[in-house]
Amino acid sequence: MNEPQIAEPEPLRALIQALRRLPGVGERSARRMAYHLLQHDLVGADQLSRALEHATTALQHCQRCNGFTVQTICETCANPRRDPALLCVVETPADQNMIEATHGYRGLYYVLMGRLTPLEGIGPDALQFDRLLERAGDGQVQEVILATNFTAEGETTAHHLAEMLSSQGLKVTRLARGVPAGSELEYVDPSTIAWALMERRAT
Amino acid sequence: MNEPQIAEPEPLRALIQALRRLPGVGERSARRMAYHLLQHDLVGADQLSRALEHATTALQHCQRCNGFTVQTICETCANPRRDPALLCVVETPADQNMIEATHGYRGLYYVLMGRLTPLEGIGPDALQFDRLLERAGDGQVQEVILATNFTAEGETTAHHLAEMLSSQGLKVTRLARGVPAGSELEYVDPSTIAWALMERRAT
Repeated sequence: MNEPQIAEPEPLRALIQALRRLPGVGERSARRMAYHLLQHDLVGADQLSRALEHATTALQHCQRCNGFTVQTICETCANPRRDPALLCVVETPADQNMIEATHGYRGLYYVLMGRLTPLEGIGPDALQFDRLLERAGDGQVQEVILATNFTAEGETTAHHLAEMLSSQGLKVTRLARGVPAGSELEYVDPSTIAWALMERRAT
Repeated sequence: MNEPQIAEPEPLRALIQALRRLPGVGERSARRMAYHLLQHDLVGADQLSRALEHATTALQHCQRCNGFTVQTICETCANPRRDPALLCVVETPADQNMIEATHGYRGLYYVLMGRLTPLEGIGPDALQFDRLLERAGDGQVQEVILATNFTAEGETTAHHLAEMLSSQGLKVTRLARGVPAGSELEYVDPSTIAWALMERRAT
């Protein structure tokens, strides 16, 4: 419906196609973004072009936690005040940030950079579970905390990791499920309450 | 809330900031896009970087219609089979495409690349209305069809242009308002029906 009837100049078409590769961006949004950059924000277009080039060449994966870094070992992993006995496994750097935001965790991290999604062909190999196994088996890690999301895919990933890691004799834990802080029971979904009941604890 | 607690490497932070300049992209989406490109689509990141650079250097505004082109005069304006007596004014190239999709218009175009939005400081000068005035006064144009959007801002723009162009002795028309093709009156909003009544025509 929004297919161009007038032949778009090639550089514009190429830009729209490139923008469409961004997650959540369809034909219409890509066209809007392209028009915006070309008409109103040439500085922004230039900035984005350079930032992409710089990021793709300068960033690498931390050899220890797999997160993005410009060094071989990232600042968090290199921090001597972090507890090397605790390793928290998250799906993305964004999840890692959320855990840091609690100011309640002083251990280290491992970033999967994804989750098991067999339907998309993302299995243990694609996520390099062997790297995590090696990292967790460094002799210092005593507990692996699985902090993957509480979605179907995140749970599957946690289940798979739990089996893999505990078979190596490691202590494996999972973030607690329960009623969110500050919420009224009336507005909490029943499956969350069911979990909270099952995992109830002595006061 | 999603502010990074862990210091993000500079190239990653720069990329996220650059992505935030895209329309409709906030902090969270920008971060998701950055992770996606870096983790799953390095080829796409490279492609986007090049496309941006190519588009910003190669594209210019057509001297006649103000649309994007790689030549001085775009293909549409240079097409001798187009009727030079008709000039259709649209807000964006996307709107131009929609009119072309009707296959019912053989005249030429002028692309405003925006609309009057006084609150954002976008007035007649920013939209270079003088260029349109010059274009419409080429001696060949006999009718200017205002096809700006039927939003408050589009209507204001059309009103302003109508006054400006008709004061130069040009015939100025506006796209008809009325009931959309294929729609049932029961589901059409009252203001549209009011317009359709006022502008009713003999069968």
